[in-house]
Amino acid sequence: MASLQDIAVAAGINGLSALMFLMAFAMLRLQPVNDRVYFPKWYLKGIRANPVTAGKSVSKFVNLDPNMYLKFWKWMPAALNMPEPELIDHAGLDSAVYIRIYLLGSVYMFRISVLISHFHLTMLNLSCSLKIFVPITVLAFAVLVPVNWTNDTLENIQNLTYSSIDKLSISNVPAGSSRFWVHIGMAYIFSIWTWYALYEEYKIVAKMRLHFIAGEGRRPDQYTVLVRNVPPDPDESVTEHIEHFFCVNHPDHYLTHQVVYDANTLAALVDNIKNLNNRLTYYQNKYERNPAKRPTTKIGFLGICGSSVDAIEYYKDEIERCCKEEAAEREKVISDPNSIIPAAFVSFKSRWGAAVCAQTTQSSNPTIWLTEWAPEPRDVYWDNLAIPYVKLTVRRLLMAASLFFLVFFFMVPISIVQSMANIEGIEKVVPFLKPLIRKKSVKSVIQGFLPGIALKIFLVVLPTILMTMSKIEGLTSLSSLERKSAAKYHLFLLVNVFLGSIITGTAFQQLHKFVHQSATEIPKTVGVSIPMKATFFITYIMVDGWSGIAAEIVRLTPLVIFHLKNTFLVKTEKDREEAMDAGSLTFATSEPRIQLYFLLGLVYSAVTPILLPFIVVFFAFSYVVFRHQIINVYDQKYESGANFWPDVHRRIIIALIISQLLLMGLLSTKKATKSTPLLMLLPFLTMWFHLFCKGRFNSAFTEFPLQDAMVKDTLEKATEPNFNLKAYLEEAYIHPVFKAAELDRQMAINDEENNPLVATKRNSVMDSKHPSEEASPTIPVEPLE
Amino acid sequence: MASLQDIAVAAGINGLSALMFLMAFAMLRLQPVNDRVYFPKWYLKGIRANPVTAGKSVSKFVNLDPNMYLKFWKWMPAALNMPEPELIDHAGLDSAVYIRIYLLGSVYMFRISVLISHFHLTMLNLSCSLKIFVPITVLAFAVLVPVNWTNDTLENIQNLTYSSIDKLSISNVPAGSSRFWVHIGMAYIFSIWTWYALYEEYKIVAKMRLHFIAGEGRRPDQYTVLVRNVPPDPDESVTEHIEHFFCVNHPDHYLTHQVVYDANTLAALVDNIKNLNNRLTYYQNKYERNPAKRPTTKIGFLGICGSSVDAIEYYKDEIERCCKEEAAEREKVISDPNSIIPAAFVSFKSRWGAAVCAQTTQSSNPTIWLTEWAPEPRDVYWDNLAIPYVKLTVRRLLMAASLFFLVFFFMVPISIVQSMANIEGIEKVVPFLKPLIRKKSVKSVIQGFLPGIALKIFLVVLPTILMTMSKIEGLTSLSSLERKSAAKYHLFLLVNVFLGSIITGTAFQQLHKFVHQSATEIPKTVGVSIPMKATFFITYIMVDGWSGIAAEIVRLTPLVIFHLKNTFLVKTEKDREEAMDAGSLTFATSEPRIQLYFLLGLVYSAVTPILLPFIVVFFAFSYVVFRHQIINVYDQKYESGANFWPDVHRRIIIALIISQLLLMGLLSTKKATKSTPLLMLLPFLTMWFHLFCKGRFNSAFTEFPLQDAMVKDTLEKATEPNFNLKAYLEEAYIHPVFKAAELDRQMAINDEENNPLVATKRNSVMDSKHPSEEASPTIPVEPLE
Repeated sequence: MASLQDIAVAAGINGLSALMFLMAFAMLRLQPVNDRVYFPKWYLKGIRANPVTAGKSVSKFVNLDPNMYLKFWKWMPAALNMPEPELIDHAGLDSAVYIRIYLLGSVYMFRISVLISHFHLTMLNLSCSLKIFVPITVLAFAVLVPVNWTNDTLENIQNLTYSSIDKLSISNVPAGSSRFWVHIGMAYIFSIWTWYALYEEYKIVAKMRLHFIAGEGRRPDQYTVLVRNVPPDPDESVTEHIEHFFCVNHPDHYLTHQVVYDANTLAALVDNIKNLNNRLTYYQNKYERNPAKRPTTKIGFLGICGSSVDAIEYYKDEIERCCKEEAAEREKVISDPNSIIPAAFVSFKSRWGAAVCAQTTQSSNPTIWLTEWAPEPRDVYWDNLAIPYVKLTVRRLLMAASLFFLVFFFMVPISIVQSMANIEGIEKVVPFLKPLIRKKSVKSVIQGFLPGIALKIFLVVLPTILMTMSKIEGLTSLSSLERKSAAKYHLFLLVNVFLGSIITGTAFQQLHKFVHQSATEIPKTVGVSIPMKATFFITYIMVDGWSGIAAEIVRLTPLVIFHLKNTFLVKTEKDREEAMDAGSLTFATSEPRIQLYFLLGLVYSAVTPILLPFIVVFFAFSYVVFRHQIINVYDQKYESGANFWPDVHRRIIIALIISQLLLMGLLSTKKATKSTPLLMLLPFLTMWFHLFCKGRFNSAFTEFPLQDAMVKDTLEKATEPNFNLKAYLEEAYIHPVFKAAELDRQMAINDEENNPLVATKRNSVMDSKHPSEEASPTIPVEPLE
Repeated sequence: MASLQDIAVAAGINGLSALMFLMAFAMLRLQPVNDRVYFPKWYLKGIRANPVTAGKSVSKFVNLDPNMYLKFWKWMPAALNMPEPELIDHAGLDSAVYIRIYLLGSVYMFRISVLISHFHLTMLNLSCSLKIFVPITVLAFAVLVPVNWTNDTLENIQNLTYSSIDKLSISNVPAGSSRFWVHIGMAYIFSIWTWYALYEEYKIVAKMRLHFIAGEGRRPDQYTVLVRNVPPDPDESVTEHIEHFFCVNHPDHYLTHQVVYDANTLAALVDNIKNLNNRLTYYQNKYERNPAKRPTTKIGFLGICGSSVDAIEYYKDEIERCCKEEAAEREKVISDPNSIIPAAFVSFKSRWGAAVCAQTTQSSNPTIWLTEWAPEPRDVYWDNLAIPYVKLTVRRLLMAASLFFLVFFFMVPISIVQSMANIEGIEKVVPFLKPLIRKKSVKSVIQGFLPGIALKIFLVVLPTILMTMSKIEGLTSLSSLERKSAAKYHLFLLVNVFLGSIITGTAFQQLHKFVHQSATEIPKTVGVSIPMKATFFITYIMVDGWSGIAAEIVRLTPLVIFHLKNTFLVKTEKDREEAMDAGSLTFATSEPRIQLYFLLGLVYSAVTPILLPFIVVFFAFSYVVFRHQIINVYDQKYESGANFWPDVHRRIIIALIISQLLLMGLLSTKKATKSTPLLMLLPFLTMWFHLFCKGRFNSAFTEFPLQDAMVKDTLEKATEPNFNLKAYLEEAYIHPVFKAAELDRQMAINDEENNPLVATKRNSVMDSKHPSEEASPTIPVEPLE
């Protein structure tokens, strides 16, 4: 058992490592050569020019201004200073609401202190300032720590080694003590506080969402409905059938529709050409740098085997061949009626018409003519649009079964791999390595390293597996895919990290144990181990949470990849832009991890309050880091309007119920059985609270109210009576492979014109003027020379 | 343990008692004096005239035609002969679908045999002929009975008294025998068969519902949406606010609306006047028969105490006073703006417009402007229209808690009452009865009788309690109230009758036991007792099922009440009509009881197949009886278009899952643990099947597809271009107390005009012509003279 001192040392080490990451980040970000890694968002927005073309030759790559180094911590207040409405404009509602999750876990207090130090007192926003964990921490330290500390249960037990951490926890209270009433009271207060904070947050997010939707400009998805499972008609083509159906059933509102082509083969060809082009560029660059020797390549598998040929010629020929293939395929897709799938994007004359069609049942057979709001054009997942109803339900069943096996039996394939990946297994597969791996040092590395790496690889691959499963389930938008994957990952973390750390044995052994235990025994079994695992989880929070977040801000992988690409592939400005990987919030993996911290915080709030400050630090630190990232780095692929909030809310509710059940189990082993009925009430009240919130706010995330649609329609008719909506919608939902690259850019520029942040056009700030002078004063863009 | 002989004797006795009821019914229904008890539906439809006015004086009351007595069993084929489409026309879809539940449990085979005997072979409808239990019974007897019978486990156990029933059940198979694979295989076959039958039935009912809705004539609820929680507006009255909102948000479709008055006080006054009128009539009749003495009454509590007054004068004065009060209240309700509640029935110009409004969200605040399909005018539950959202959720929470306590603790108040209702308790309350109740015979009656009667009274009152709970929950239509009450009653029966009979102890003791048992132990505990309780349930089926259904057809209570009313209150034809109590299908109590039989049948199908024939007889018999009742007796208060089917389906699924779990539990105690994974699959597959059916068919019961609405609108516009819809809808949704009685009648006649069954008008068949000559040939109306 670790003592308080041990914990402090660990905190110091982890804090230091986090600080080192931060220092590294502070240094790296100031170098102009890394500018595109740490500020890609501003390039994508067209506000920042290319630093390579500006200034003297050395300062192109290295920043020599000592003043800048002294102010390295400036990014933090800069990240916090952008007010929320501007942040929504800048990064979208999804991102703005996402970082509110951290805020919900943390508190504005941190922000307040930062703000006070900058004399920005006017920006104090106390309206929703006090969130879940800071008040809980304060209260727990004020009440529970003294209550626990002033007992001497542990001291009285002979031969027991205990630490000061345990003295602060509930373990120190003797069984049957009436002091447990304090813990029960605190559990009630914490629950009520959590309900209040969740209710307020749901209310604010729902309002933000409605406000965001109401304030948005014209977007194609506001007028468009995705229709799936169009029934086949013997006399009409799909497009005729759709037109007739909607002309008849929505006569006053139907405007136009776009059929969906099955362009998966074409998309693969286009990808291939892009890939070949990259290789060609690489060899051309190589040749330019060293004109003496023409580069060669081998035409076999992966360029490793086969006969050598001139690389530039070879790839030029290959590209030409593929381009022909692509043109033929493109022709075929457009002309062949069989490549039209029975789904379409149907557009209406008004938002009202689209809202009506999206929310109503069209046919008496509920498996055909399924309508739903069209996702944003860039949010569409094109591959899944043509799955018939029965197939969908079967797929869902199979995926539910797979998820069960993945969560509870994931150790089985890994142990198989591990058992094969030992010395003997390797010797069998690659006998010529025998002398090497028989060496003692190598052997020990393999034995100690390989089993671990098998698990690590699985954990790294896991989000991709989960995403593939969600794709098989047949969801039609990227945002819903991410949400579904997050739900799966959450279950995995809950079972394998949380329960797995508390109880020994694999997930399946736990399941087996639980099934053979009574409903009242399960919380007891888990609950009784809770106080003992506090130090483990504190370490976990520091290693995974603190250092993980600090590593996030350094962006090591994108940094390396960008410089590699920059060296080998980049020739033009356009290439450099493509080499830039802005990334985006990975909702599917990071949200479930936040939920794990919520769970830990809630479970330990009444048991071992010493864990709470570590959680608070994690949330506050993450808040700052991610605020910085969404302002300067991430480029969201789509905007769903914070559609994920009901999921976040539900999972915090789940965490709350788990914490209540475990406290009940723990107390019932402490001979405080009289308290059980009182504690049993809490989960039921939490359930009811969840249903109440769902009824109160959920529809804001699933439906589009007619009143709001009508307001926007009326406004639009008054301001732009002659707008040609049909032309505007004509090309909106076209499979990306049919879109010319130029068209894409055009839209981005259009976007920018509506954006109040943008003061300058792409590539026009060539003379290295101070960009932040033109942009909003709160944008944290540093000078470049 | 009862032997096969005992069971046969019990079956004989119960069959005989059922037969006696049937004979009594056959005799009673032929007497003209009972005509209004056994054929009220035909009177209400206006097809049958009053038998009292027809024929000779003796035959007014007693049927003297011996031929008729010989054909007393004729009602059975008559009940079966009406084809289903005609039945729907005659009795409504609710009733027609309700009796399909019995058919689902039973089979068409019975019908086929009856039909063959009548040479109506052409009417054979085999398309959905084979339902759940007959094939299961046949298969079980062919396979499971031999498998069980040919063991000798029970014979080998020393000192065990066993019966031939047990020899037929699974108890006779030795532990660990490989014969259990037969049982598992049969469980799979039974489950698959049940899925198939349920799927087919859901499909048929959904089709029937859509066909019914499509085929209906014009009805006010097709154009109307119930709007609740209209927000208060400082500048506008409720009616102005509603008009403005819908004029703005549904500009092309809004037609008119009707506000709802809070007329509960007024309704109470009207009821009171009706009551006083009844008393006045009673005393007037008394006076007419015995003019020598003017009747008197006492004016105190319930007419028991107080000073004596002339009854006729007194009630005349009272009625006059109340009428004045009522007029004042009526004036007040109409003129006072505060008596308008924030809810309204909003009507649209087309079904399409109403369908759109009912299915969409109106406001961004989902607790105001709530829209839903308006129930039929006669289906509206007026008292609940004005409950605000938050209050509703709190009420639901409270009712959920109450239901829990009612189900698990209902024995507590009863035992308190029972403990007070003993000899000593009675002596304390009414000491003057002491000598009487001290007598041995009286004492034993009280001791043996009172505790039982306390329980009986509770069980009789229970449906009323459950209905009151549903009313408190705030549902707005009678049909939904019935559905919710049925769900509550189903839970009660499941816990207290099914589980209560299998496991000893009160429901709470069971709950306590289950909570402290592991998830795998619970099915074992219950499952192991299942075979032992077979004889008990066979007896239960005969007593509660067979005799209960036979008692239903005799209609003892309505018979007595009608004759009492006829003697004391009836003066005019109109009075006699009012004295007639047609009753209706009591969905809230009888559907959960059917579900109990489904549960028993499914649970015992693989365990003790001997129980199955009793279930089949129950279903077949009930089918005939209820078919007769809905044709000749019941007058449904509303028509919901078989909206209850999803509930029925869900409960059969629950029964199926319970049966699968219990079989798993039973087999695992029989050392057939290898089979557990195979059986564990079944409940999951059943769940998935349920979700599949729900997705496939449920929307037919909750939504109205736009395509169907458009078809009907277009048709109507073409056939009746000048119909004045506004005038038609103006008065449709008026609180019943504001409706003149005459208006009511008018609507009934309008209904009849559209009804192909009706050949004559009310009270116009005075010359006792053979009514069935004019009506459809399949109507089972016997000649009256």
